[in-house]
Amino acid sequence: MKNTFGYSVAVTLFGESHGEYIGAVIDGLAPGIEIDNEYIAHMLTLRRPDGKISTPRKEKDEYRIVSGIVGNTTTGTPLTILIPNENVKSGDYSEMKTLARPSHADYTAECKYHGYQDSRGGGHFSGRITAALVAAGAVCKCALEKKGIYIGTHVKRCACINDRDFDNFKQDIDAVNKKTFAVLDDKCENDMVNAIIEAASEGDSVGGILETAVIGMPEGVGEPWFDSIESMLSHMMFSIPAVKGIEFGKGFAISDMRGSTANDPFRIQDGKAITETNNNGGINGGITNGMPIVFRTAIKPTATIFKALDTINFKDMTDAVLEAKGRHDPAIVHRARIVQDAATAIVLCDALAMRYGTDWLK
Amino acid sequence: MKNTFGYSVAVTLFGESHGEYIGAVIDGLAPGIEIDNEYIAHMLTLRRPDGKISTPRKEKDEYRIVSGIVGNTTTGTPLTILIPNENVKSGDYSEMKTLARPSHADYTAECKYHGYQDSRGGGHFSGRITAALVAAGAVCKCALEKKGIYIGTHVKRCACINDRDFDNFKQDIDAVNKKTFAVLDDKCENDMVNAIIEAASEGDSVGGILETAVIGMPEGVGEPWFDSIESMLSHMMFSIPAVKGIEFGKGFAISDMRGSTANDPFRIQDGKAITETNNNGGINGGITNGMPIVFRTAIKPTATIFKALDTINFKDMTDAVLEAKGRHDPAIVHRARIVQDAATAIVLCDALAMRYGTDWLK
Amino acid sequence: MKNTFGYSVAVTLFGESHGEYIGAVIDGLAPGIEIDNEYIAHMLTLRRPDGKISTPRKEKDEYRIVSGIVGNTTTGTPLTILIPNENVKSGDYSEMKTLARPSHADYTAECKYHGYQDSRGGGHFSGRITAALVAAGAVCKCALEKKGIYIGTHVKRCACINDRDFDNFKQDIDAVNKKTFAVLDDKCENDMVNAIIEAASEGDSVGGILETAVIGMPEGVGEPWFDSIESMLSHMMFSIPAVKGIEFGKGFAISDMRGSTANDPFRIQDGKAITETNNNGGINGGITNGMPIVFRTAIKPTATIFKALDTINFKDMTDAVLEAKGRHDPAIVHRARIVQDAATAIVLCDALAMRYGTDWLK
Amino acid sequence: MKNTFGYSVAVTLFGESHGEYIGAVIDGLAPGIEIDNEYIAHMLTLRRPDGKISTPRKEKDEYRIVSGIVGNTTTGTPLTILIPNENVKSGDYSEMKTLARPSHADYTAECKYHGYQDSRGGGHFSGRITAALVAAGAVCKCALEKKGIYIGTHVKRCACINDRDFDNFKQDIDAVNKKTFAVLDDKCENDMVNAIIEAASEGDSVGGILETAVIGMPEGVGEPWFDSIESMLSHMMFSIPAVKGIEFGKGFAISDMRGSTANDPFRIQDGKAITETNNNGGINGGITNGMPIVFRTAIKPTATIFKALDTINFKDMTDAVLEAKGRHDPAIVHRARIVQDAATAIVLCDALAMRYGTDWLK
Repeated sequence: MKNTFGYSVAVTLFGESHGEYIGAVIDGLAPGIEIDNEYIAHMLTLRRPDGKISTPRKEKDEYRIVSGIVGNTTTGTPLTILIPNENVKSGDYSEMKTLARPSHADYTAECKYHGYQDSRGGGHFSGRITAALVAAGAVCKCALEKKGIYIGTHVKRCACINDRDFDNFKQDIDAVNKKTFAVLDDKCENDMVNAIIEAASEGDSVGGILETAVIGMPEGVGEPWFDSIESMLSHMMFSIPAVKGIEFGKGFAISDMRGSTANDPFRIQDGKAITETNNNGGINGGITNGMPIVFRTAIKPTATIFKALDTINFKDMTDAVLEAKGRHDPAIVHRARIVQDAATAIVLCDALAMRYGTDWLK
Repeated sequence: MKNTFGYSVAVTLFGESHGEYIGAVIDGLAPGIEIDNEYIAHMLTLRRPDGKISTPRKEKDEYRIVSGIVGNTTTGTPLTILIPNENVKSGDYSEMKTLARPSHADYTAECKYHGYQDSRGGGHFSGRITAALVAAGAVCKCALEKKGIYIGTHVKRCACINDRDFDNFKQDIDAVNKKTFAVLDDKCENDMVNAIIEAASEGDSVGGILETAVIGMPEGVGEPWFDSIESMLSHMMFSIPAVKGIEFGKGFAISDMRGSTANDPFRIQDGKAITETNNNGGINGGITNGMPIVFRTAIKPTATIFKALDTINFKDMTDAVLEAKGRHDPAIVHRARIVQDAATAIVLCDALAMRYGTDWLK
Repeated sequence: MKNTFGYSVAVTLFGESHGEYIGAVIDGLAPGIEIDNEYIAHMLTLRRPDGKISTPRKEKDEYRIVSGIVGNTTTGTPLTILIPNENVKSGDYSEMKTLARPSHADYTAECKYHGYQDSRGGGHFSGRITAALVAAGAVCKCALEKKGIYIGTHVKRCACINDRDFDNFKQDIDAVNKKTFAVLDDKCENDMVNAIIEAASEGDSVGGILETAVIGMPEGVGEPWFDSIESMLSHMMFSIPAVKGIEFGKGFAISDMRGSTANDPFRIQDGKAITETNNNGGINGGITNGMPIVFRTAIKPTATIFKALDTINFKDMTDAVLEAKGRHDPAIVHRARIVQDAATAIVLCDALAMRYGTDWLK
Repeated sequence: MKNTFGYSVAVTLFGESHGEYIGAVIDGLAPGIEIDNEYIAHMLTLRRPDGKISTPRKEKDEYRIVSGIVGNTTTGTPLTILIPNENVKSGDYSEMKTLARPSHADYTAECKYHGYQDSRGGGHFSGRITAALVAAGAVCKCALEKKGIYIGTHVKRCACINDRDFDNFKQDIDAVNKKTFAVLDDKCENDMVNAIIEAASEGDSVGGILETAVIGMPEGVGEPWFDSIESMLSHMMFSIPAVKGIEFGKGFAISDMRGSTANDPFRIQDGKAITETNNNGGINGGITNGMPIVFRTAIKPTATIFKALDTINFKDMTDAVLEAKGRHDPAIVHRARIVQDAATAIVLCDALAMRYGTDWLK
């Protein structure tokens, strides 16, 4: 359904980088959920570029909820979030209009939209749109917390520097959710930031790996075939620009293991089923088993860099060279982490409402 | 939609390992597609266990198409494929009924279906159901070939042994589609098979990585946000049992690269846009760019092994030990490759029919 | 989604009049629902032609449930019903293949399927397919009854002869569900049957109006805009061949009333809200209000009649004359009533599962 | 999907009567469609109350398109329309908050949203939301006209006074699309308006019947079972507040006809198939046959009237009496006609894009 995701809780995204508004409509939220504006604002802040290792574009993200609430409480009808675009400098992008930025969507947008696409700042493909996704996801994430479901994402790896794994999940999730640069091991923040700055100083960019954990999910949610929890989460995560891979539990590493070590033995602990290891990332047969859901995404290095690049002019179909100007992030992995949290929250709200009904989240 | 995938071309799966039939309904296929029964039979053969490095369960897979065709030509109305289950030995599974096989869906099925699930042979969660997916996908894959779109999958890695990468795509795709054990470099087949046999001899199992390539896809197919080609393919791939990760193009490796090497420079070649590298796997901004679509999935080692495993009895919620009997594969990666082809074909048929209309595939 | 209806409980239909099987897949049924085969067989019998005022085609409708149950209990995974086609006489239809039967789908099928449609006996457009819909709906209707939700349909009008309205809903629903020719006032059965026989003797056909009542639906089910209960029911009802109109409550008659008489005053009765009249048919703002849901459909006279009809040959696009042979019903309204019951049950199961979760129907 | 309608062209509605904005997102529109703001403004004007036979609420409907266009041309990405609410007098509604207006959604909203609904002015259930539907539909209707597809609706009946039928479709459609009070026979306008004024003077309200015609639809659009054109149109029409019935072609009247007169004989005219009568309203077997699509909806009298009404207080579940104040229409049939046009256009755009692909409407 293109720009709408979900059945029971469905999010519709709209907007362009340099349009009047970007925004999102969340349909199907239970009535009676309290909107915590500080929570939303905090998540938007974490996504926002800080100007040091991010684009100096100033974004205030002063969102407004223009439908679906009375006071600060959801009504159960579509909740619409508007975020005005500010500080827009279209001029910087004029040259690019017919030069395809390599690894961007410029050329594919041309193929799909035949020249009618809004090419200013990436238009509808811009990472800017994720601000609307974050705002919508913040509403969902906050509601999930009231049901005891917690989501957190850290920069597992950036510029080949590794953070440690999740250990005490609740504590680690709480910790990263407070951090601007979300690493579990504070020592690696400096290394990562320096690596980003170094790449930036060379006009280049770096990528990384994001790891998300979810705790508190009831067991028995998800479907055996096409709507496995992995299917729904991956469907959503590949909507996030720059994501080129996703893996659950041990992921690609499990393919090198033998069954005898890969299998997660079940045990009874305090009357509840647990697994001793969690190589399957909390999901068996597409359905939650009550253990933490753990997955990682591969974030590619920012496509726009300040080096001359071979490319084409897609209007006259000739070879060309592109030199980017404007404001661009040398890395987005540290900003994308909050997008991943938000996106995860949306998927889980939908899965839970499908499983337990439309009032469940209340 | 649980067991239905797709909008314009939609596949519905049904059946259990030990039920009367498994099957699939393909709705929305263009009218006038010729069904090539040899093609379907060949793909079903490639999925079938061969008894040497697979379960000795005999499956004839004598499918019947019981609706949606006149003679051998599609009518445009739902095409239904039935595959009878044969050689069923339910007795072997009786012990397991309340013991959760680790890393299987037994426990999560119990949580979701409250004891009503068909637990014989994995029931609806069984890899057996993929035979129906393969048959449905074979119809789609064959139709795509007539439009110049070719799909092939090889065992990129198994038991830590690597196959070579795709090189000449058309040639390599043709080659693997003829092979029972799909590797590009024939030399690694022996090593992989021996590693599987060795694991089997120890009552253990191995996993691997599957790599799929698609050539001939028109550029401009897919959607910027929630229905990116990556979203749709990953949604489908995580429906395949044992898949725990997926990556497009360079995938997780791209997260270690810098933008200057990760970016795929565009060039004009014979009047057509190409990229000099294909680190993005043929997809920019969720939309095809005309280059080969390349992705890899992580296949976990078969969960059922012949070693005593710690687990629980989920009826009385006590710790237990499980020793598997019956017929099980020491590896499924070499069988899953054809499932991945089939699943890919279904996704692409849907995406193309959404883009170009319901007659396009004719 | 063409041949699939529903989100949480979804039914997929397949088959052709003269194919091997017709059938349906019900996905999303709660686990633990007991299948009452007598109930299903009874509903199939009510749909079946009796040879007196219906086509003499013999249909045994020996359905089989080939997936989704263990014993007689649903597992929660897709339940597939197969009904073999018997007593097929394709020869009778050979002449019609390029002559469009007026008011049938022959010409529109040609436009859509370009000559590839199965034209034998109406193919996928045949009323025969409703047998699968009835079987699927029977499973749903039986499950709803165990939750106190009862559905019944009577022939409100046939050949311009009127049956009385529903009065004591529970009693009337019980009564019609036992009758082969479903009228509330037994006296009008003879008149209607005679009118049908008379039309048949002249090679002609008659239509009628079906009225359905549903009692026991919880209040608060349905959505304000696009998924109003009326929207979902009408979407489904227009899938039934020959339905050309639907109205809820007073329907078209309410458009002649004034607000002061059309409005349904609320009252409290035994602590529960009721309305003194039910001109809105149990639905306000698209959402159930706890009163009986009442709606009527207009069933057109059977299109195939035994008179020479002006038509076209759509192969060579010339005028032609068609004289129908074969087996055809002079009326289908008395058979369609059970299709309407079944179709209603499917819609309500989906709406209830969306509202209360996937376990609700158990 | 609640507040989203459509697969390939999908419209999402949001907003409340007294919220900040109402609006709509249209996703999936072809790129390159020119937006005709006069066209949209004209349609919004036709929906707007005129103060004489409508509520004196002033609505300027100064919509803004805030995404999905560059200049006045669609980009192919989500087009978002915002309409600010003005002239809001919430005070008038305060008394009603726990008194259920009979035949309104107040009580059912309470059942569904548990007291969290926005009850000011009907909230999300308000007819006000149709302004957003009209704006979205205006974009679609204008685009269809450029493809030769024309839609028009007239007040077929109001307060028991009949307008004439469509005769010369193109001429009649053009005529009604210019009229504020859409009747084909100008003589009946006065009678209808006087009847409305008379009812209003008694504090009462009237209903009516709307008839819509569509010409220029290609043949072969729609699906045999669940996505018949009738199913999709009726699904949408029952989303319009006050619609309680819909019929296609001869509709309920066809149920009194015999097959020999109901059947529409095909003929070849100028090399094209036509039918001599159009009792089936341009649709056979759920699929367009190229003849005009004709359908009628039953519009109930406005529920809010200025007479004391028996009702309940749903907070304390007691009997009560309600006397409405505020601004209300004594009839809405003459305003709903343009909503019906808009809604029809949305459905057809989706059906056409599904059939012919996403570029078709360009």
